[in-house]
Amino acid sequence: MDRLIAETAVVSPRATLGVNVRVGDFTVIYDNVILGDEVTVESHCVLGKPTPLAEGEPLRIGDRSLIRSQSVFYEGSRFGEALRTGDRVTVREKTVAGREVVIGTLSDIQGNATIGAYTRSPSNVHIAQGSRIGSFVMIYPFTVLTNDPRPPSEPIRGVTIEDYGVIAAHVCLLPGVTVGKQAVVGAGSVVTRDVPPGMLVSGNPARVICPAEKLGMPDQPWIPAYPWMRRFHRGFPEEVIRRWAEEFGPPS
Amino acid sequence: MDRLIAETAVVSPRATLGVNVRVGDFTVIYDNVILGDEVTVESHCVLGKPTPLAEGEPLRIGDRSLIRSQSVFYEGSRFGEALRTGDRVTVREKTVAGREVVIGTLSDIQGNATIGAYTRSPSNVHIAQGSRIGSFVMIYPFTVLTNDPRPPSEPIRGVTIEDYGVIAAHVCLLPGVTVGKQAVVGAGSVVTRDVPPGMLVSGNPARVICPAEKLGMPDQPWIPAYPWMRRFHRGFPEEVIRRWAEEFGPPS
Amino acid sequence: MDRLIAETAVVSPRATLGVNVRVGDFTVIYDNVILGDEVTVESHCVLGKPTPLAEGEPLRIGDRSLIRSQSVFYEGSRFGEALRTGDRVTVREKTVAGREVVIGTLSDIQGNATIGAYTRSPSNVHIAQGSRIGSFVMIYPFTVLTNDPRPPSEPIRGVTIEDYGVIAAHVCLLPGVTVGKQAVVGAGSVVTRDVPPGMLVSGNPARVICPAEKLGMPDQPWIPAYPWMRRFHRGFPEEVIRRWAEEFGPPS
Repeated sequence: MDRLIAETAVVSPRATLGVNVRVGDFTVIYDNVILGDEVTVESHCVLGKPTPLAEGEPLRIGDRSLIRSQSVFYEGSRFGEALRTGDRVTVREKTVAGREVVIGTLSDIQGNATIGAYTRSPSNVHIAQGSRIGSFVMIYPFTVLTNDPRPPSEPIRGVTIEDYGVIAAHVCLLPGVTVGKQAVVGAGSVVTRDVPPGMLVSGNPARVICPAEKLGMPDQPWIPAYPWMRRFHRGFPEEVIRRWAEEFGPPS
Repeated sequence: MDRLIAETAVVSPRATLGVNVRVGDFTVIYDNVILGDEVTVESHCVLGKPTPLAEGEPLRIGDRSLIRSQSVFYEGSRFGEALRTGDRVTVREKTVAGREVVIGTLSDIQGNATIGAYTRSPSNVHIAQGSRIGSFVMIYPFTVLTNDPRPPSEPIRGVTIEDYGVIAAHVCLLPGVTVGKQAVVGAGSVVTRDVPPGMLVSGNPARVICPAEKLGMPDQPWIPAYPWMRRFHRGFPEEVIRRWAEEFGPPS
Repeated sequence: MDRLIAETAVVSPRATLGVNVRVGDFTVIYDNVILGDEVTVESHCVLGKPTPLAEGEPLRIGDRSLIRSQSVFYEGSRFGEALRTGDRVTVREKTVAGREVVIGTLSDIQGNATIGAYTRSPSNVHIAQGSRIGSFVMIYPFTVLTNDPRPPSEPIRGVTIEDYGVIAAHVCLLPGVTVGKQAVVGAGSVVTRDVPPGMLVSGNPARVICPAEKLGMPDQPWIPAYPWMRRFHRGFPEEVIRRWAEEFGPPS
């Protein structure tokens, strides 16, 4: 299990693999795939699965990405560098994502979606077609971004989440809603209307509770919990943290 | 990857495969499996997994079906022609389904369930044992059909969804409830009581809002959104659409 | 498919396998794995996936365990005897579980969690890091145990579920809540506060309804449904059932 390309992997000779790409056992890589340098693809994955909906576009994965076991990516999507997935994520065609995105275990991205840089979902998020997700967005498990206002219907109306938005666990975002910049959606909410920037909403249906910056930390209620960029830096590059200090004030 | 049966697949010689069956890499097909003609099974699937609960019944998959990668079907279930699954669905024994059913990515059918023809779940539905789902039913992601009124207990009481019922995303259907013909359950609802035919319900607990036919289309509120069969035809055969026009009136 | 170790499996010679271990096709077993006697690992699994977070600890699986297809276990966790999983479960490092635990299809245990003996989740539960789950706990599908009171933040605050607690389907347990001994959480609830022992709670936010013992069985309302140990014994050993009769009274 220390080879660069496992002997049991089935890798198309037409796929383009960068320097030091590692491919795990029983992984299948189809023709229309471009992997950057230092990419690791673990075992039992499927990359570049053909679909006419991709209209011939390749699957592109940026340098230094990690795709964990049993993940399935169709052809026709594009990820910036240092993508990191959990195990068995699914990504359909025409998903376009920035750098250093984290897609957690079991997450299901149905395609035709945009995701900004540094956005993270720890686990099991369903992202319907037509979703527009900004940068530095956090989406927690069992949350669904829907897209169909009168199911079943066409055309669809995706959800928009603006930069730095936080969607806690077990949330249902209804078709076409926009979660504003730096807004926070509480766990277990059903969001039926737009969430204004910077506000905390919660409940079913979700209602505005207060500006998110009024929320204190659990043990130190005098420290504002939001904007979270003042206090949570794990895994973000130095340069980003410096920029945050300028934009949002010094770490709390 | 262009062979009919991938060299790396493990296919029991006792399995019955129709004409032009395609089997992807690393797929395992056990003994007690009958695949119709023109069936495609993608990579990393498991078909006909043995279980004593199947009581010797085979897994039967109808002609022209597509089973996407990493799906697991136990022995003892029966699907009509043109089944279409997403990636990594799970289907346990004694599931009986009609023709042209769609089971979306990650869906989990626990067995002992019936599903009518043309029913579709785009993604990630949990269908407990004892569920009875009609024809032309639409079930959206993160919806669960439960079955246990006093968990843990026996016997179970499955959910019933009658023909043309629509269950939007992130819905919890409590044990034993019946969703009536052409009824619509709004996203994020918790359904604790039967839903009368043709009604729209929503909320936690779900309450009757109005007859579904009172709902207009988002951009054209004068056009009734339901019954949806008057306006949504994607993927349904001509013959079905003609029948709908007779039964429900001309396309809106 | 009748060999003990499938020819297509990739099993590290450094892994320790007990007597009569069976390993299915296309399963990968890494170095740092200790499997007890009579363990069955089905096809397409990944056991002992390396991670620095395991700090060198092995994955230990007790005697007579069954790990179903496509499951992924990282190194650094420990399960007692007779573990039983559904298909494609995920278990990250530093999960410590007692004997005869059931982890259902698609369940996602994020690690750093403790699980008592005989606890069962039929399907698709998300267990965040820091969760503490007692013995004889029942957790139903699409339920999430969260851990982050001000997402994203550190440190985390896991959920605690005490012995014999029942969490029905589609429930969201907020960070740091404790569900008391023998308490019951109704389906579709969002639990924002501690649940006192023995109480039934329900709703969003969940409120105390009554002592769980006031609930009768659906067809025989004069028979108290809880504590469930008086009436539900399927799959529990004789010795446990005898102990229950002494502690909770005779079967109802």
